[in-house]
Amino acid sequence: MEPRFAILTLGVDDLERAYEFYHDGLGFPSKGIVGKEFEHGDVAFFEMKNGIMFALYARENLARDAAVPAASRSSTEFSIGYNVRGESEVDSVLTQAEQAGGKIVKPGRKAFWGGYHGYVSDPDGHLWEILWSPQQLPEH
Amino acid sequence: MEPRFAILTLGVDDLERAYEFYHDGLGFPSKGIVGKEFEHGDVAFFEMKNGIMFALYARENLARDAAVPAASRSSTEFSIGYNVRGESEVDSVLTQAEQAGGKIVKPGRKAFWGGYHGYVSDPDGHLWEILWSPQQLPEH
Repeated sequence: MEPRFAILTLGVDDLERAYEFYHDGLGFPSKGIVGKEFEHGDVAFFEMKNGIMFALYARENLARDAAVPAASRSSTEFSIGYNVRGESEVDSVLTQAEQAGGKIVKPGRKAFWGGYHGYVSDPDGHLWEILWSPQQLPEH
Repeated sequence: MEPRFAILTLGVDDLERAYEFYHDGLGFPSKGIVGKEFEHGDVAFFEMKNGIMFALYARENLARDAAVPAASRSSTEFSIGYNVRGESEVDSVLTQAEQAGGKIVKPGRKAFWGGYHGYVSDPDGHLWEILWSPQQLPEH
């Protein structure tokens, strides 16, 4: 395998609610919920800047598609890291995500590895770490 | 927020085992498990081709870092999509991942959306969808 992936799909309980969080709240661009012509096919795609496709899909449909048992939510399966240009931007992004319907589970603070970070969970409990690190600034 | 993210961190039960799966088994490049100088800081990073950092971190340490309760594994929280150039490559990647210690939960087959795909779970139950779609081929 090559060290790459093309899509990150999040399992959600309520597709409409998750879509509103990411599209209306965070401003991620999307053509909306598509795939309604397929039974269990409803999905929302967001084109991310680095060529990654970000997708939202009902947990029960993901279970069906992957042929695994349906499972309940669990916040320690993964975390998405979003790097910013300064400490104040960590705080402002956390606040924006909270206003969009997320929950700040760890307010911005100094991180043990030297930077500054905080965590917010989306309406399905999925973690986003908002971080500032001098060693890992956004490219643009 | 901009439509992007920089890091995808997977929570794992056994960091050494997960590292062996991704590094030795799948061939993802890494400098190994780092951060051992920090208590609860052990982590492995893999630089992905599209500028994304892929990371492995103990579930209990992710819980501690994010200030959320420790939670058990759940396979329907997310899926990582890996696109390939043809149907036979779906099958060969699934086989490679199985030989590396993964489990094929859905063998390669025609997908309802018109392509061909299958799913394999890593040693922690995290899903990878291996897919071929004429509309979403790898860039290189």
